[in-house]
Amino acid sequence: MMNKIKYQNTLDEIYTEVITLFGQGKVANYIPALANVEPNQFSMSITLIDGQQFNVGSHESSFSIQSISKVFSYTLALRSSNKSLDKKVWREPSGNPFNSLVQLEYEGGIPRNPFINAGAIVICDSLISTSSSQENALDKMLKLVKQCSNDPSITLNQSVAKSEMQSGFRNIALANLMKSFDNINNDVTDVLQNYFSQCAIEMNVQQLSRSFLFLANQGIDPVSKEKIISSSQAKKINSLMLTCGHYDASGDFAYRVGLPGKSGVGGGIVAVIPGKMAIAVYSPELNENGNSLIGTQALELFTTKTGVSIF
Amino acid sequence: MMNKIKYQNTLDEIYTEVITLFGQGKVANYIPALANVEPNQFSMSITLIDGQQFNVGSHESSFSIQSISKVFSYTLALRSSNKSLDKKVWREPSGNPFNSLVQLEYEGGIPRNPFINAGAIVICDSLISTSSSQENALDKMLKLVKQCSNDPSITLNQSVAKSEMQSGFRNIALANLMKSFDNINNDVTDVLQNYFSQCAIEMNVQQLSRSFLFLANQGIDPVSKEKIISSSQAKKINSLMLTCGHYDASGDFAYRVGLPGKSGVGGGIVAVIPGKMAIAVYSPELNENGNSLIGTQALELFTTKTGVSIF
Amino acid sequence: MMNKIKYQNTLDEIYTEVITLFGQGKVANYIPALANVEPNQFSMSITLIDGQQFNVGSHESSFSIQSISKVFSYTLALRSSNKSLDKKVWREPSGNPFNSLVQLEYEGGIPRNPFINAGAIVICDSLISTSSSQENALDKMLKLVKQCSNDPSITLNQSVAKSEMQSGFRNIALANLMKSFDNINNDVTDVLQNYFSQCAIEMNVQQLSRSFLFLANQGIDPVSKEKIISSSQAKKINSLMLTCGHYDASGDFAYRVGLPGKSGVGGGIVAVIPGKMAIAVYSPELNENGNSLIGTQALELFTTKTGVSIF
Amino acid sequence: MMNKIKYQNTLDEIYTEVITLFGQGKVANYIPALANVEPNQFSMSITLIDGQQFNVGSHESSFSIQSISKVFSYTLALRSSNKSLDKKVWREPSGNPFNSLVQLEYEGGIPRNPFINAGAIVICDSLISTSSSQENALDKMLKLVKQCSNDPSITLNQSVAKSEMQSGFRNIALANLMKSFDNINNDVTDVLQNYFSQCAIEMNVQQLSRSFLFLANQGIDPVSKEKIISSSQAKKINSLMLTCGHYDASGDFAYRVGLPGKSGVGGGIVAVIPGKMAIAVYSPELNENGNSLIGTQALELFTTKTGVSIF
Repeated sequence: MMNKIKYQNTLDEIYTEVITLFGQGKVANYIPALANVEPNQFSMSITLIDGQQFNVGSHESSFSIQSISKVFSYTLALRSSNKSLDKKVWREPSGNPFNSLVQLEYEGGIPRNPFINAGAIVICDSLISTSSSQENALDKMLKLVKQCSNDPSITLNQSVAKSEMQSGFRNIALANLMKSFDNINNDVTDVLQNYFSQCAIEMNVQQLSRSFLFLANQGIDPVSKEKIISSSQAKKINSLMLTCGHYDASGDFAYRVGLPGKSGVGGGIVAVIPGKMAIAVYSPELNENGNSLIGTQALELFTTKTGVSIF
Repeated sequence: MMNKIKYQNTLDEIYTEVITLFGQGKVANYIPALANVEPNQFSMSITLIDGQQFNVGSHESSFSIQSISKVFSYTLALRSSNKSLDKKVWREPSGNPFNSLVQLEYEGGIPRNPFINAGAIVICDSLISTSSSQENALDKMLKLVKQCSNDPSITLNQSVAKSEMQSGFRNIALANLMKSFDNINNDVTDVLQNYFSQCAIEMNVQQLSRSFLFLANQGIDPVSKEKIISSSQAKKINSLMLTCGHYDASGDFAYRVGLPGKSGVGGGIVAVIPGKMAIAVYSPELNENGNSLIGTQALELFTTKTGVSIF
Repeated sequence: MMNKIKYQNTLDEIYTEVITLFGQGKVANYIPALANVEPNQFSMSITLIDGQQFNVGSHESSFSIQSISKVFSYTLALRSSNKSLDKKVWREPSGNPFNSLVQLEYEGGIPRNPFINAGAIVICDSLISTSSSQENALDKMLKLVKQCSNDPSITLNQSVAKSEMQSGFRNIALANLMKSFDNINNDVTDVLQNYFSQCAIEMNVQQLSRSFLFLANQGIDPVSKEKIISSSQAKKINSLMLTCGHYDASGDFAYRVGLPGKSGVGGGIVAVIPGKMAIAVYSPELNENGNSLIGTQALELFTTKTGVSIF
Repeated sequence: MMNKIKYQNTLDEIYTEVITLFGQGKVANYIPALANVEPNQFSMSITLIDGQQFNVGSHESSFSIQSISKVFSYTLALRSSNKSLDKKVWREPSGNPFNSLVQLEYEGGIPRNPFINAGAIVICDSLISTSSSQENALDKMLKLVKQCSNDPSITLNQSVAKSEMQSGFRNIALANLMKSFDNINNDVTDVLQNYFSQCAIEMNVQQLSRSFLFLANQGIDPVSKEKIISSSQAKKINSLMLTCGHYDASGDFAYRVGLPGKSGVGGGIVAVIPGKMAIAVYSPELNENGNSLIGTQALELFTTKTGVSIF
């Protein structure tokens, strides 16, 4: 393992290399709130197990975490030990785009994994079912994100959530298809409202890398010492991020970067090096699979330069 | 062509033979209003080009025409000469179940033909776009049905329409998927309300066979002499009913019965013998493809006994 | 029905109109023997029920009938009354390209209909199983073609057959996939040799229109009075040609032309008007679905000009 | 890391637990040579980085490695630095059964990854292309296996290879489908002969765990110090084994076991713990995804008991 002093140098080197790639990807354009984001942004943050942080770029600028929220909702769902979860969603790579209905129809409304849209919608449905009237599913979710990031200021962008609710026809289709297969128990609109809200949570890379530290430490926040989930559950989330964290480019990410991670169409990616650190990166221009183009490149450079890998 | 006196005898023979098949199919159960229908029903009606009618069974009992309404809505759409229609829906057999989303996703939200659910929803959308505030799409539709059947008493069952709106998750999914591909221009809920309403029109076999007479006479009602559509359009609707009128059992229907026809999950089937007659049959128990089991059998018996066929 | 004298005029008019379309399609290029055909050819022939013929263009030039042979092989198979046929091949439009393996895999190796490649290969297998050592399946096939066309000179092009055997990888894949599902009983290579041989039969439009006359006359050759198949079987073949005769453009052909027909990638199309005539057309440039571009246009013009249609 | 003395105890415990599961799976039955294997077998072997081995069960009994051979052939292909490899095969989980043709047809004959059948056949084709007349592709392959296992006695079972050649219709279909897309350059029969031969290599668990040690040590055999492949290539193979090593149950294997691994329908599974060891297990009864039922269970028990995981 490299000397800690060198982390900042590595981040600085990466910064210099990747900013030459601005303009090669395309900002997500399916909702106005995301389409208007300034494309030429880059930030990266490392949080080591001991809590020490290294940052580069606009690391205090918040962005929409979008699909990264699926890791938090799945964490919550695992915690509630809902026995029926295994029948509502599988744990296999889908081999299909993140919003495909094809596999879902062939497979009776059971999504392949909790990190594609259909799977995350099912998880939302499950969280609503296990929530109480005092604390609803979205409140629980925000509470977890604040706990993991050790930052009570984190919130969600209502206009992004509303915007997705108005134009998310594909997700409405997914949810209704699953409802037709009896794999959604609650009202479809309620479930989607919850789903779009969690996607609209905003964080910066510092908060994000900090918030995934429990997955680098067997489920326990190494700084606060709070147990978020069990060691076995943490390993399972990490394995799911490796096989399914980047839609139908998960294999390629594993091949090139070699770390468990999760991306969002907002331009964020977060990755975990078990026992060592969590890394967050942000750059809003996406490649053709919907993952941050520069973010993926930056993570590949990081593993190459530092030699870290789980393999 | 057989002597007219013999038609009644043929219908009577068919009646005797098919009522032994009660109990072999299953009544549509996806909405309560249809599931509660008495299963052991059978009625059949022929209307000859000259307007003469022959009936058997409970021929005055009305039923939900469901997908048979797709022929009327497509007739209306052809009449409005909407140039964009060819780009919104194709004219090919789908080779898939009537409510499948798979092909729709692979083919960019363009349904295979106007007689599967997705296609009929697109036609509804088109009818709304070309309707005025004075006469909405549903009014136009009912007006056409009344005109073709020469019966102003025909109406729709609001509780069936409402019931489908509340539980038609698959159709909601289809409509939203097409909206995500920009193939629905109007509000999804409006389009679906229209679609579910037209499906809920109720007719008996006498009205139904009478209402298809214009398709047996090159587009002109042979009794009233009113032109419904052009000769060329009538031929096209007939060819579409032959290739696509019975979902993914259209080929088998053509093979066994050899007539253009359209079925509905309410248990009705209507068929056309160009130049001669229209035939309607009703029996609510369905086969595995969603077509009336006894209705199909009755039509096959009719063509066998009379020797009529377009082939 | 128009005066017989006018048929020749109609064909002449069509000729004048369609030759302006040369150059808009593409000759089949998957085997050298077909790719080298002169593209700017057109011929058309009508044989009336009484045997009278009308021709236009290069009507004595032979071409490879390719998939049109599937009608002859299915006729033979129906004649042998093989009870297992219904379990080996269905009778539904496939909704997929003619050589697709997708549906075949999902549906356990049972092809959708006898007029797509997989279905015709299964029919070949069945014909081999029911043939004797004295008269093999290919001999039977040629004998039938000679009988129906009343022309003993018809033969097959060995170099075309051999060429397909060497480069027909997709068909080899189809056959082996079906063998893996136990839907091919004989040796795969034997079956394919038979299949490629029947596709390589060569006829001109006069022979071709003459040879389909039995399908316009309820199974009986109206000139020789020989019964080829039963009336019921003739109707079934016609209905299959209507729903499945033009691959995944069968619906469009029915919509535009309105006649049962079968096309081949060699550039031939043959159509039947029950009770009246058979029509053959040849022009080797294909449209994007693999059907003769000018041939389809010529048949559409013929039905428009003469007003004939089964609908 | 646990004391070395405890490894034997762990293996012994696993043995006691898993032999109670005999009878729950099914031996591969698609070729006689595999179907006749005695089902109630179990053996397991660990080879540590320092070369020390621990075994349990019938660890000297050889079995057909089948798909495990795909790791060796991909290793060879990476070594030959064939630039075109990236265009011939991707690196994504397929989300489909190991022998599916569906995705292959939709995706233009490019297999998803080198560890499904289609991908391994393409790799064979590539190895033939880059082989010389002095040393053919199969010889190279055997040489590599002998080198990695440090055992020159390893050979292949000709009768198994021949048996697969005679009944491997699905694989023949896959190869011909890819040939039709120009993704196979050599003669299809040659490629398949090579493929079936490599699948028929026989090893016992001791040889197998020893032979994967280079993947636990960044590409270098830690005992002989020979470099098999580069560190970067070793990581990539490990990531591919994690995301794609167990067909459409790869995600579940990663979730339950958490190690890169590769299974074969002969009943073998091999897994790698980077920096520590390679593990091989054998038990011929398969689960519904075609992976050794008891083998998977044994590996899950091993990671649970020892706490090792890459996550």
